[in-house]
Amino acid sequence: MQYKAPLRDMQFVLHELLDSTSHYKSIPEYQEVEKDIIDSYIEAAASFAENEIAPLNRSGDEEGCTFENGKVTTPKGFKEAYKQYCELGFSALAADEEFGGQNMPFSLSTVVNEIMGSANWSFSMYPGLSHGAIQTLEHHGTDEQKAIYLEKMVTGEWSGTMCLTEAHAGSDLGIIRTKAEPNDDGSYSITGQKIFISAGEHDMTENIVHIVLARLPGAPAGTKGISLFIVPKINVNADGSLAEPNQVTCGSIEHKMGIKASATCVMNFDGAKGFLVGPENRGLNCMFTFMNIARILTAVQGLTASEIAFQGSLEYAKDRLAMRSMSGVKAPDKVADPIIVHPAVRNMLLTEKAFAEGGRALAYYLSFFADIVVKGTGEEQEYADQMLSLLTPIAKAFLTETGYEAANHGVQVYGGHGFISEWGMEQNVRDTRIACLYEGTTEIQSLDLLGRKVLGSKGKMLANFTKVIADFCKEHEADEGMAEFIRPLADLNAEWTDLTGRIAKQAAENPDSVGAAAVDYMYFSGYVTLAYLWARMVAVAKQTLANGTTETGFYDAKIKTAQFYFSKLLPRTRTYVARIDTGAEPYMSMDVDQFAF
Amino acid sequence: MQYKAPLRDMQFVLHELLDSTSHYKSIPEYQEVEKDIIDSYIEAAASFAENEIAPLNRSGDEEGCTFENGKVTTPKGFKEAYKQYCELGFSALAADEEFGGQNMPFSLSTVVNEIMGSANWSFSMYPGLSHGAIQTLEHHGTDEQKAIYLEKMVTGEWSGTMCLTEAHAGSDLGIIRTKAEPNDDGSYSITGQKIFISAGEHDMTENIVHIVLARLPGAPAGTKGISLFIVPKINVNADGSLAEPNQVTCGSIEHKMGIKASATCVMNFDGAKGFLVGPENRGLNCMFTFMNIARILTAVQGLTASEIAFQGSLEYAKDRLAMRSMSGVKAPDKVADPIIVHPAVRNMLLTEKAFAEGGRALAYYLSFFADIVVKGTGEEQEYADQMLSLLTPIAKAFLTETGYEAANHGVQVYGGHGFISEWGMEQNVRDTRIACLYEGTTEIQSLDLLGRKVLGSKGKMLANFTKVIADFCKEHEADEGMAEFIRPLADLNAEWTDLTGRIAKQAAENPDSVGAAAVDYMYFSGYVTLAYLWARMVAVAKQTLANGTTETGFYDAKIKTAQFYFSKLLPRTRTYVARIDTGAEPYMSMDVDQFAF
Repeated sequence: MQYKAPLRDMQFVLHELLDSTSHYKSIPEYQEVEKDIIDSYIEAAASFAENEIAPLNRSGDEEGCTFENGKVTTPKGFKEAYKQYCELGFSALAADEEFGGQNMPFSLSTVVNEIMGSANWSFSMYPGLSHGAIQTLEHHGTDEQKAIYLEKMVTGEWSGTMCLTEAHAGSDLGIIRTKAEPNDDGSYSITGQKIFISAGEHDMTENIVHIVLARLPGAPAGTKGISLFIVPKINVNADGSLAEPNQVTCGSIEHKMGIKASATCVMNFDGAKGFLVGPENRGLNCMFTFMNIARILTAVQGLTASEIAFQGSLEYAKDRLAMRSMSGVKAPDKVADPIIVHPAVRNMLLTEKAFAEGGRALAYYLSFFADIVVKGTGEEQEYADQMLSLLTPIAKAFLTETGYEAANHGVQVYGGHGFISEWGMEQNVRDTRIACLYEGTTEIQSLDLLGRKVLGSKGKMLANFTKVIADFCKEHEADEGMAEFIRPLADLNAEWTDLTGRIAKQAAENPDSVGAAAVDYMYFSGYVTLAYLWARMVAVAKQTLANGTTETGFYDAKIKTAQFYFSKLLPRTRTYVARIDTGAEPYMSMDVDQFAF
Repeated sequence: MQYKAPLRDMQFVLHELLDSTSHYKSIPEYQEVEKDIIDSYIEAAASFAENEIAPLNRSGDEEGCTFENGKVTTPKGFKEAYKQYCELGFSALAADEEFGGQNMPFSLSTVVNEIMGSANWSFSMYPGLSHGAIQTLEHHGTDEQKAIYLEKMVTGEWSGTMCLTEAHAGSDLGIIRTKAEPNDDGSYSITGQKIFISAGEHDMTENIVHIVLARLPGAPAGTKGISLFIVPKINVNADGSLAEPNQVTCGSIEHKMGIKASATCVMNFDGAKGFLVGPENRGLNCMFTFMNIARILTAVQGLTASEIAFQGSLEYAKDRLAMRSMSGVKAPDKVADPIIVHPAVRNMLLTEKAFAEGGRALAYYLSFFADIVVKGTGEEQEYADQMLSLLTPIAKAFLTETGYEAANHGVQVYGGHGFISEWGMEQNVRDTRIACLYEGTTEIQSLDLLGRKVLGSKGKMLANFTKVIADFCKEHEADEGMAEFIRPLADLNAEWTDLTGRIAKQAAENPDSVGAAAVDYMYFSGYVTLAYLWARMVAVAKQTLANGTTETGFYDAKIKTAQFYFSKLLPRTRTYVARIDTGAEPYMSMDVDQFAF
């Protein structure tokens, strides 16, 4: 398939749904970010993505990365494309001007990431990981550290990684073992092995700046004894020039299900020279900024999966002929009708479409809050931070899981052909599978949402958002044309609070109840959140149609997709509620040695 | 992971749940099939599968099949394992004694297929496809055709294929184009290209017997103009010796998502010599026998996926340490608790277990009906045929979809490690994905169930089965200990009929309603069917516990798994019912050119 960036829908979400103009005007630093500037960046990204990196997506998957004598070679064309990506300024988009960045909003880089990631997710991971490292240094690095590392990372001359996971410690970072011993010169000797390090080693840049979690001598056990270190692949002199190689080596790369063009490395630190970032033992706190950003970007991966599945299977469903429509022949001049006439095929296409467009709305909605968190001030910033805290785990878990579902529909629409590599649909499934695992699994996100955010704030974070939904419903309650959306949305919104109360009651009696309810609660929350955004999209579409537009088909499709979402996807909430109400007991009653005989 | 055949559970289903002794005694030809004989076959199959073909599963995936100059080479060890498989008599299990078979029931070969397929699905496809060709010839071949081909196929000396699909015709076989021109000697010249031919070419046997669908000159259009032909790779003399090669060549093999050790071939027939099987233009009718058997075997693939996911992730969940149980530390001597303490992990394990064991019950239940269809007589045979007709599309679609779900849980329990090839979990996902596509997609099975079977029989086929469930509920209605299962089961059973009536009413108004409801209806039917079998398993377990047993853990686990199934999986029916009740309109209202802009 040939990816085409859905520019019209992106503009709809940014400008019409979320009113980008008012948004940027509300942030002092983005006064000059006009609609035209945003659109021209997006068009430039689309052109580069469609023409330069989309063509490397399948070949990158087939070739994969290769590992030999400690060196990783990326697939043919990746190195050149990365150079071009940097030259075009995409690596510097959201970084500070002080370090050579373009100081554009995070929300714009979210859109650009969607485009790059849709075209070639593996490719987009190389600059994506650098962003994480850049942000961590921007927020927590010393002036000296910033001076040495940031500019070269912003230009893409050097890349970055995040080294968290160890073989025995993934979700549970509290038990990592990598050690940091202080040296006399104020640096540290880092020793330990990290796994699953994306872009840990590659051939695209002359240096790689690793951000590494490790324990200082005598640090408290658990998450409160972890510190953060900069460990460059090649040591850097005070003037920024490269010195001798550090004691950091890549031990191997993983053979994995997908994202094969992204090098997933085992990294060995053998007394490597490192530099403390942020306060001692506060490494995990310093990582939160990065982790939240990484979660939004992973949520975007879910949405790209829905979009790719939709584009690929729509094309096929219009072309492929099989059997006749039950409501009368639609293509009498052909041996059979195109399969898009069949309701079961339309179910899959509309599911992909509802998740892609709804997911886009959610991701961009979040990214607007992120803009305010990054550059806003005062109460507005605090509110945005609360909203982001609540919505990020929903977006990460829900959009990746629904993206994976959509990716599978993409295969299914193609029938047996979907299983064959040349169509790209099976690669989409394989590449997307990781999104439900990395940056915190679906289960971890769900616990974060229900345990830490909703119950942890005693319902306050949830109340922020249910008030937004309730206000929206109130605003439209008199509009009969909106009733088919507003009524169910208002009911679900009220149910969200009730359900939360019931779980809190369960938890008072059985501490396993939160863990038992969490994933179902996340899905329930995700479906309600998307229902709110779909209802808002309908309101915009209806208003635009009422005002008069030449694009009646586009706006009418928004309403029909919302009708599909409300009648065919929202009923899934019934299952989650019923499951939550049967509590923890059915999970916990079986003894461990009873599982198998 | 190391596959271990779940012998205890297989015996439970065969002997305790389904009362194999009474079953085989009821069929004249199987009077001598004793429990011990069945068990010894199963143990032999387990030993061979665990020791010989399971070790080739991952290496087969990594190496794949190779294609060069028209020849296909299977992965290292496959050829030798196939020879051993035939020598041990597994290829001849269910075939007629007249042709060298062992005349064992189809139900036993179903169990053996589960074992072989769990160990290495790709391997099991080579003899699996032969079974289809053997059965077609047994039922529809002339005595001469049987004499020439059958014995060598039964011993495994020659293998077989089924050549149905063409590049433009998969689900819709009515539009195939391969031609059969009559020759003067009574044979036919077959010309056309077939794709997706499993085992179409390989290096395991000296000859391959293709069963090919083609059109005779002047044949009616559509499905009523298709005939069936035997086309050997190498022509066979009247005495059974090999003559010159036929005009059949393998054009290429597919690069695909999974089952990489199974060769999926493009087969070119260039005036190849073929022989008509069965009456002219009745090819699809002759294929029904094979297709139904193939569907049961594909249903088994779904169950193997659940079993593999369960075995692999259970092992990991007991070993892997991460975080502490919310209800108190469980492993105080370790840095963290094993993840099996977490409800979300247990949800995934129990889902896999409920689908594996429930799926096993359903597959074996079907295979007992198949025994009667194959060897029974009179009204019993007719009844069994009706039951099989109803339950086969449910089993095929439901067990493959739930198997795919379970396979994904298998990955998810491993976290990021699940994405890495060495654990086998991601291969299970890739290998299983095809099961929802081949032998009729989930959507095609669902249409077959709702349109052809349920509505097509005016509810008679469904009534047969709802009566079975109603009788079971009545039998246990006074038993308070069974009430938690019997009440919801009886309600769902009544709802099944009501729901069917509502769809029939929708269909009278909108012909697209059947297509719109079909997949949801299939899922609803699947969940009710498995609920019935789980309730029956509980009844057996409770009775056995009441009678006294040393295996209290095993039987108690059956009850607890059923409780999980009823409280956590059955609520999914609420979504399907709600979706069906919103009808076809939300799928059909969008114009084709409105899907994307």
